[in-house]
Amino acid sequence: MLALEGMPLGHRFTFLEPAPDPPAGRLGEVIAAPYDDPVALARIAAGADVVTYEFENVPAASAAYLARRVPVLPPPRALGATQDRLAEKQMFDSLGIPTAPFHRLDTTADLDPALAVTGLPTVVKTRRFGYDGKGQIVARSAGEAAAALDTLGAGLIAERFIHFERELSIVAVRGRGGHRICYPLAENHHRDGILRTSHAPAPGVTTLLQGTAEELAGRIMDQLDYVGVLAIELFELDGRLLANEMAPRVHNSGHWTLDGADASQFENHIRAITGFPLARPRVPAPAAMLNIIGALPDPAAIASVPGTHLHLYDKAPRPGRKLGHVNITGPDEAAVRAGAEQVWALLPGEPPVLPIGARHG
Amino acid sequence: MLALEGMPLGHRFTFLEPAPDPPAGRLGEVIAAPYDDPVALARIAAGADVVTYEFENVPAASAAYLARRVPVLPPPRALGATQDRLAEKQMFDSLGIPTAPFHRLDTTADLDPALAVTGLPTVVKTRRFGYDGKGQIVARSAGEAAAALDTLGAGLIAERFIHFERELSIVAVRGRGGHRICYPLAENHHRDGILRTSHAPAPGVTTLLQGTAEELAGRIMDQLDYVGVLAIELFELDGRLLANEMAPRVHNSGHWTLDGADASQFENHIRAITGFPLARPRVPAPAAMLNIIGALPDPAAIASVPGTHLHLYDKAPRPGRKLGHVNITGPDEAAVRAGAEQVWALLPGEPPVLPIGARHG
Repeated sequence: MLALEGMPLGHRFTFLEPAPDPPAGRLGEVIAAPYDDPVALARIAAGADVVTYEFENVPAASAAYLARRVPVLPPPRALGATQDRLAEKQMFDSLGIPTAPFHRLDTTADLDPALAVTGLPTVVKTRRFGYDGKGQIVARSAGEAAAALDTLGAGLIAERFIHFERELSIVAVRGRGGHRICYPLAENHHRDGILRTSHAPAPGVTTLLQGTAEELAGRIMDQLDYVGVLAIELFELDGRLLANEMAPRVHNSGHWTLDGADASQFENHIRAITGFPLARPRVPAPAAMLNIIGALPDPAAIASVPGTHLHLYDKAPRPGRKLGHVNITGPDEAAVRAGAEQVWALLPGEPPVLPIGARHG
Repeated sequence: MLALEGMPLGHRFTFLEPAPDPPAGRLGEVIAAPYDDPVALARIAAGADVVTYEFENVPAASAAYLARRVPVLPPPRALGATQDRLAEKQMFDSLGIPTAPFHRLDTTADLDPALAVTGLPTVVKTRRFGYDGKGQIVARSAGEAAAALDTLGAGLIAERFIHFERELSIVAVRGRGGHRICYPLAENHHRDGILRTSHAPAPGVTTLLQGTAEELAGRIMDQLDYVGVLAIELFELDGRLLANEMAPRVHNSGHWTLDGADASQFENHIRAITGFPLARPRVPAPAAMLNIIGALPDPAAIASVPGTHLHLYDKAPRPGRKLGHVNITGPDEAAVRAGAEQVWALLPGEPPVLPIGARHG
């Protein structure tokens, strides 16, 4: 999607991708190699004006190698800050950004101090390489927490289990000159740890809440001298926001911007890393994004629902794999919700448990 | 642009293109051969589910050859009807669609009857392969008309010179099942015979005028059992519409739909030829399209104007060549016009003589 949006801006793309036959191969040259292959990295350094990534588990050493030869944006320090959940939470803390109380959890000696901070239930997570809900266990007792430590191994973090009302996310973009734009907060619903749907602007968000989210995104991006799209997942609780985690890349909860805003997160990411002015996005009406996961629906049936915009990634179906998404636009929130319900009936898997805008108890 | 919009719908593209190194080569396989190359046509027929074209001077024989083997949409008869200006005008006539009075002009013997119909000045045009104002001469006397016949050769048409108030165009789409959607009328301004800018919805268009344009588009498309995008250029004169010419393809005056509508002419063309339901486009606010012709502007300067959307075609600059376009969106017509004026100052060439919405005398 970065290439599809970046080509009309005059750019050409080369991709480093370890997996065979990536869909991106239809949009530019693919260098098929592991992310730490020195020959591949040298080729990229020699041929690119700027390097970016859409996957935060790129080895930091590879990013650092490239960054000595060519601009790598977002800056590699953003990878460092997001690849370790503990470092990420500590940075939130140091910037005065509220989070769920957390504690490192490496050995059984850490159990008591961790539980003293988080209480029970506690969420035990791997500090690295967690994705789509993998590497997380909710422990309801000290015994379960110890078992989680056994299961997941060392290098964990324990976090207080937050009975949040809903998950929101903000997609923010910072340009090379430090200027910044933000998209409206999206309301996100997961199932089995995988994002199923985002609605934006999230229903019922006040100007104050939007402003709070933008301000905290700005604090993080300024701290990292960030350039590009940064997404921050937030828990809403009693009108406050707790930062859960962030992603130094274009984000699934911002895919609605392809059709719901006049400039998408992908265009603004490309603008940012190439030193262009950012496009302040207009969002004339509500939009929704529904992920297509595991199996492909009948595309003609999707297209028959008014306001739908199909985005397939040209990936082979596989359980749990994101194969595309459907954006829905309409004149108002009611029309978008009606469209989303029609699309849910056509997609594999079940819709989210709670309707959009409803709050958890 | 068809491929960029069609790939997310799950389609793959192969291109037949005689020119070397076409930009489309970055989006799929290119078969580099003349349009009438039998081996190339056989390869396309063997490999494609459906064939379309974005250039109306494809040889009718090539389209007919392909159509015996694979669906060719729009149907080849639409090529036949638009490749000959005389046949096109005769079809308008037969469908009761108003046009400027016209007459065939093949030999000097046709001069008197032609001028009797068209009066003076008269526009003498080649019947075939005219494009971007090429092959047209305005004759202000019988002598100039005779000279035009000498210059352009046989196979001409003479048309009354219309002192139209403005040029409008309608982009209509008909699906395989005969259903149809239309975009709002665009107001077009040319310079040196080349389209410079389109604004849509055209300022001051009444529901009646829009309905009239849609109805006549429907009459033509039903007559041709048309599938895909059809664009019709219209002269507005005293509140009436005269059909000037049509193009059986996605049209430059519809490029604004990439950013000004939630479903573009390109997406709807792909939907139509693949048998998908069409997307009824929402146009929440006005939009403008400015062509980039001959030389490339500074893209960062364009991007700094609020509401601009840059679309470069990855073509080498050459005088008179369309290298891309800039779409401008905004909350209202005033914002779009202000943006267009800023962009004009950054583009090579001069802006249109008359401001948008102004009428010729």
